[in-house]
Amino acid sequence: MNAILTGQSENISCLTRYNQTRQRTVDICRSLETEDYVVQPAVFVSPPKWHLGHTTWFFESFILQHHLADYKPFNPNYSFVFNSYYESVGARVVRTNRGNLSRPTVQDIYDYRGYVDNAMNSLLSDPGISQSLEELVILGMNHEEQHQELLFTDIKYILGHNPLLPAFNQSVAGEPVPQSSGAFLKVEAGLYHIGHTGNSFSFDNEHGQHQVYLGDYEINESLVSAAEYLNFIHDGGYRNFIHWHSDGWEWVNAHKIEAPLYWFNIDGEWSHYTFRGLEKLRPDEPVTHISWYEATAFASWKGMRLPTEFEWEAAARRFGWGDCWEWTGSAYLPYPGFIKAPGALGEYNGKFMINQMVLRGASVFTPPGHSRITYRNFFSPDTRWQLAGIRLAR
Amino acid sequence: MNAILTGQSENISCLTRYNQTRQRTVDICRSLETEDYVVQPAVFVSPPKWHLGHTTWFFESFILQHHLADYKPFNPNYSFVFNSYYESVGARVVRTNRGNLSRPTVQDIYDYRGYVDNAMNSLLSDPGISQSLEELVILGMNHEEQHQELLFTDIKYILGHNPLLPAFNQSVAGEPVPQSSGAFLKVEAGLYHIGHTGNSFSFDNEHGQHQVYLGDYEINESLVSAAEYLNFIHDGGYRNFIHWHSDGWEWVNAHKIEAPLYWFNIDGEWSHYTFRGLEKLRPDEPVTHISWYEATAFASWKGMRLPTEFEWEAAARRFGWGDCWEWTGSAYLPYPGFIKAPGALGEYNGKFMINQMVLRGASVFTPPGHSRITYRNFFSPDTRWQLAGIRLAR
Amino acid sequence: MNAILTGQSENISCLTRYNQTRQRTVDICRSLETEDYVVQPAVFVSPPKWHLGHTTWFFESFILQHHLADYKPFNPNYSFVFNSYYESVGARVVRTNRGNLSRPTVQDIYDYRGYVDNAMNSLLSDPGISQSLEELVILGMNHEEQHQELLFTDIKYILGHNPLLPAFNQSVAGEPVPQSSGAFLKVEAGLYHIGHTGNSFSFDNEHGQHQVYLGDYEINESLVSAAEYLNFIHDGGYRNFIHWHSDGWEWVNAHKIEAPLYWFNIDGEWSHYTFRGLEKLRPDEPVTHISWYEATAFASWKGMRLPTEFEWEAAARRFGWGDCWEWTGSAYLPYPGFIKAPGALGEYNGKFMINQMVLRGASVFTPPGHSRITYRNFFSPDTRWQLAGIRLAR
Amino acid sequence: MNAILTGQSENISCLTRYNQTRQRTVDICRSLETEDYVVQPAVFVSPPKWHLGHTTWFFESFILQHHLADYKPFNPNYSFVFNSYYESVGARVVRTNRGNLSRPTVQDIYDYRGYVDNAMNSLLSDPGISQSLEELVILGMNHEEQHQELLFTDIKYILGHNPLLPAFNQSVAGEPVPQSSGAFLKVEAGLYHIGHTGNSFSFDNEHGQHQVYLGDYEINESLVSAAEYLNFIHDGGYRNFIHWHSDGWEWVNAHKIEAPLYWFNIDGEWSHYTFRGLEKLRPDEPVTHISWYEATAFASWKGMRLPTEFEWEAAARRFGWGDCWEWTGSAYLPYPGFIKAPGALGEYNGKFMINQMVLRGASVFTPPGHSRITYRNFFSPDTRWQLAGIRLAR
Repeated sequence: MNAILTGQSENISCLTRYNQTRQRTVDICRSLETEDYVVQPAVFVSPPKWHLGHTTWFFESFILQHHLADYKPFNPNYSFVFNSYYESVGARVVRTNRGNLSRPTVQDIYDYRGYVDNAMNSLLSDPGISQSLEELVILGMNHEEQHQELLFTDIKYILGHNPLLPAFNQSVAGEPVPQSSGAFLKVEAGLYHIGHTGNSFSFDNEHGQHQVYLGDYEINESLVSAAEYLNFIHDGGYRNFIHWHSDGWEWVNAHKIEAPLYWFNIDGEWSHYTFRGLEKLRPDEPVTHISWYEATAFASWKGMRLPTEFEWEAAARRFGWGDCWEWTGSAYLPYPGFIKAPGALGEYNGKFMINQMVLRGASVFTPPGHSRITYRNFFSPDTRWQLAGIRLAR
Repeated sequence: MNAILTGQSENISCLTRYNQTRQRTVDICRSLETEDYVVQPAVFVSPPKWHLGHTTWFFESFILQHHLADYKPFNPNYSFVFNSYYESVGARVVRTNRGNLSRPTVQDIYDYRGYVDNAMNSLLSDPGISQSLEELVILGMNHEEQHQELLFTDIKYILGHNPLLPAFNQSVAGEPVPQSSGAFLKVEAGLYHIGHTGNSFSFDNEHGQHQVYLGDYEINESLVSAAEYLNFIHDGGYRNFIHWHSDGWEWVNAHKIEAPLYWFNIDGEWSHYTFRGLEKLRPDEPVTHISWYEATAFASWKGMRLPTEFEWEAAARRFGWGDCWEWTGSAYLPYPGFIKAPGALGEYNGKFMINQMVLRGASVFTPPGHSRITYRNFFSPDTRWQLAGIRLAR
Repeated sequence: MNAILTGQSENISCLTRYNQTRQRTVDICRSLETEDYVVQPAVFVSPPKWHLGHTTWFFESFILQHHLADYKPFNPNYSFVFNSYYESVGARVVRTNRGNLSRPTVQDIYDYRGYVDNAMNSLLSDPGISQSLEELVILGMNHEEQHQELLFTDIKYILGHNPLLPAFNQSVAGEPVPQSSGAFLKVEAGLYHIGHTGNSFSFDNEHGQHQVYLGDYEINESLVSAAEYLNFIHDGGYRNFIHWHSDGWEWVNAHKIEAPLYWFNIDGEWSHYTFRGLEKLRPDEPVTHISWYEATAFASWKGMRLPTEFEWEAAARRFGWGDCWEWTGSAYLPYPGFIKAPGALGEYNGKFMINQMVLRGASVFTPPGHSRITYRNFFSPDTRWQLAGIRLAR
Repeated sequence: MNAILTGQSENISCLTRYNQTRQRTVDICRSLETEDYVVQPAVFVSPPKWHLGHTTWFFESFILQHHLADYKPFNPNYSFVFNSYYESVGARVVRTNRGNLSRPTVQDIYDYRGYVDNAMNSLLSDPGISQSLEELVILGMNHEEQHQELLFTDIKYILGHNPLLPAFNQSVAGEPVPQSSGAFLKVEAGLYHIGHTGNSFSFDNEHGQHQVYLGDYEINESLVSAAEYLNFIHDGGYRNFIHWHSDGWEWVNAHKIEAPLYWFNIDGEWSHYTFRGLEKLRPDEPVTHISWYEATAFASWKGMRLPTEFEWEAAARRFGWGDCWEWTGSAYLPYPGFIKAPGALGEYNGKFMINQMVLRGASVFTPPGHSRITYRNFFSPDTRWQLAGIRLAR
């Protein structure tokens, strides 16, 4: 067993880690009502029950069907229902989408998880499994961890768009750390090594360690706070086109954006929806739930800019990070020498390398041990339902 | 008590009838899974839990709040959630729609029903309630019966658009009667009385009995069968624009319509989705789940036409009806002297009198006692999820 | 020659009438700039050059190609370009629409008109042409007259939506007659004959004279004036959902409708765009350029209604009409015994008989001799660019 | 006078260069029909008359109104009509778009050009104009040159989407050079200087010369030919999702893309629309009129990739370029130290720096002297109407 691959410092077995990861997904969902598992209030949100099924389908489809002798799929229709893309469908085509599916029920899906977990436990109990198979299992766990973060943001969207604004009694989610207006760290020009190296787990989009030349720059040791962002709002930042990209200005006007997602101005006082329900805005929290358009408009208003992902990586050991994802000024593109894995797993990251911007860091929704200094997250510039904020550079 | 108003021949009390009607709604939903109550796979479908709440809100909002002393609403937010139109919203506006709402939960809504039913039982146990109040209760029961039929068609849509095509073990729903190719009944020209008269319950859109002059016509005593409709399909009826209205032709092509809703051609054999799951098509069943466009295209292909709603009403005592709703050639328009009721109830029917066609009869999903010879149902000409078929005239 | 078929009282030949009709189309366009012929600012508007070509294509396609020996089409591609529906296309398909076509040029199309007119003159100079051919020519002239009215309304839309609001020095267009608040005429209940009869020209949708029973009603001898309509606006008529159909209310809100098309409230004073440019609203003009939704909302606000098309026809000899088309409360449906003509001409009217409301009368844009008491015009209820107004009934 | 700023090697005066540039725009349009100036067959295409007006408005709005004493605008409405963005509008708002405007006429706009050119000649004849004003004039000329290239591509789109596929007798446009399958040039790893330096004219997006570290790479000395691209088509490249980005795959399917824009497969033989009309495809021409999605899918199919814009710039002196723009693998982002100019000119380039990919080189439609090795062109990855092709790297 190669414990280091799991990205965990403790020397735990692959089987133990598998069961911990799977359990954590269930724990996140524990206080959901059955109905909360079902809905899809926006195309970019997936119903929680879909996440539960899709992460299970990953292990069934990529591992059990190929590596466990005599494995019988739980339900042959599930590969259609829980595949991400639905490119290939069976004989009978019924057009539908995730938020319209009442069946399989939540209980069906938990049964499916149990069935697959049993089989995986059989498979992983075999002391002689190959390293390549173990690497596939580790990939499946990292895949599930990505969906754990999406579960948090999707649940927040589902409950935060319900007119009753219900609380989600969620001790699993961390608390953002108060920010104080930080100093700018100076970084000297030079060649820096960027990208992942070593034996521990990483995604294909981090591979290909390479040198990047950076000029002198400064990067703030703190995130932008809600209070600072309120100054931007009160100064008319959302109504002054000079700070916005052309696409961003169109987006602001088309969607009548006036504040971060989940912020409500009620009779002149700012509140926001959190997992505790509607709460007064705390001024020292980092501003989050903003799009890249808003992040760059704010930076322009400050006369500064976002760091590139390379500037971020070169300096990240010198500041604290992990409260929220941080938008960078870098487009999500392949590193030199990027190679797609063969087959279906090759679709994992490469095919998204257009029209997306890189985020660095991690958030309080990110599973422990899931992030690292070379980790590249990415979303389109209008994305707001992720826990993303701003670190300034100049 | 004025039993005749209830539209029932038995002399049962308003309270008894109230409880029977309310119970029937619950009975229809009995074999649903919790998840089935939540989804909205098309804008014209409402989630079953919304029907349960909305019919309850009707009694709370129009009756209890005005006529039961000291009545306290179950939850003040529900009037926003279960109002049909969401025209007026509260202080805090959250844009959303019915299929995105996981809360209130199904259990919350059953609690709401229980709370309102208790209050209604108190109110209706009073022997001295006024006739106008009793009429309002009867309107509420007829409103709930309309939603009972919608529950059947919406549940069918929800399950029939799920890739697992689950059965709905539903003994409440009737079975369509086999059709034999019927004779044409001759009706003589003359003045006919159209519209409802008498003391029994009817909707405002049936009122204003009036004379209509009809020329000689013939109307078939049977509905068009699946077998006859298959001939139309096999003769290329869906691909020959000569039989279609301009809007219908656009609709057929935009949605790639090739058969009634729920019909599947699997390897050359026709099946359809029913509450028993996917079944072979029975050729002697009446064709249903077709739009008005398809009904008129079929009639054109036969060299005939649909009857007007007046021709239907003038002849309906001479043939059996009630298996499925029957599209007519009449637009849904006010009868002479139509008057909207004052206040919110005035919205009941009149505001829909544009861009809709009249259907006459009833279906196996229609609650017992809910239909009558003067009943005017109406849907837009592209509607397919209702149990609607064809009776030919010439 | 059967002069009466032309719908003209003077005894003029079919050839003379042909040349007069064709010349009138050219006269309407005389003061257009070349650029005005080309644009299509809304899907329901056709570029003037398309009207010029399409009316010409009608004679070429339905008459010359079948009845003039050795006739060679001017340009074989034109049947694709000037066909209304583009159902059948040639070998090479280029997706496009009318407003994107810079070629054929305006001059090309005038050349096309000259070429076809020459051929038609040859054909019609033959003293022995059959009556059925002459009837087809008369249909072509009536078709062209319909497009003459559309030319006026489309040109008005093109210039009235240009930020320069240019005038259109158009002596061909008539002037609306001032309206005084008229009396209500009483009409007695009884059977009335509806529909066209006799030898003169009429469209297929007027055929099938039949009896309709009408109850007692009253109909106003005048049209609703701009001043009366302003009262509706100032009383908040556009913001009170009680007066609107459900579809109409959605339409008003989606399009932010606050006044008739072409009305502008500039610093508190009402102006409207006319062919003379932007002018102050004259209070005694009939209100026009309103949708059926607005017409019925106004009538509801007055506590009245629109007449049905049968009530209109039964009373029309008793009041003046012809200033603007008048929305009725009748859906556009076939008369009893309606029969589609065989072949492509059968598409003329029947296929539009859904989702449209009937207008009766005529407007100052209607060609002389084109309208009659049985004439049925029709548009969808959201149509505003036609010269349509309101006559009240009760 | 500072001739070098004009980017021309000859020592010509700013006034002479102004008049030459302005004349070239008129020359490009010379063989258009009036109707061709008006239409807008796609949102990304502007009508030629808009280009004529907009380039003129640039000189009026940014130069004459500020620097020529007593200058009176030709028509105060034109600043609304010919502004790119219509952000600020006058008192009277008429919603419209460029392709719907028949007025101002083409002749009006040529009169406008004449009026502004006269004023500019007065201004530029003054021997004492400041260098900053001259720089502004030079910017205006470069702006006009960008629109000259757009005139070619927009005219090609207008005529190439007309079902008559008319020729455009255009001697101004160059001819693409035949490509032979070229060798790969090797470039060594190291730091390279990227970006413009020196006194000659360049756009703000090229400024900020900086170092970029590149690893070893190879870049082809030739462009991909039509024949090579046909192999990709015939090998099913458009139907194999493995080669496509996720967004690209959606785009291919939504728009049913099967070949480059303007390519037609007629009875098995490939033709394409050129300014000479429909012609047989020449296999040795560079493939053009493809999107970035197609360029990257082709490269993936070859097992290669696109060069980054830095790789391109570092090697461009070693191969011939200028036949068509070349898609790169670089997102369009600011160079280190990028500063927006103050005021409206600051919008010039910076606000487009999102969701666009960089193209390098030039095309046969690019005005002489307009391109250079540091020039950064940019379009969104679905753009096809530009003359863009592929150079492979590995």
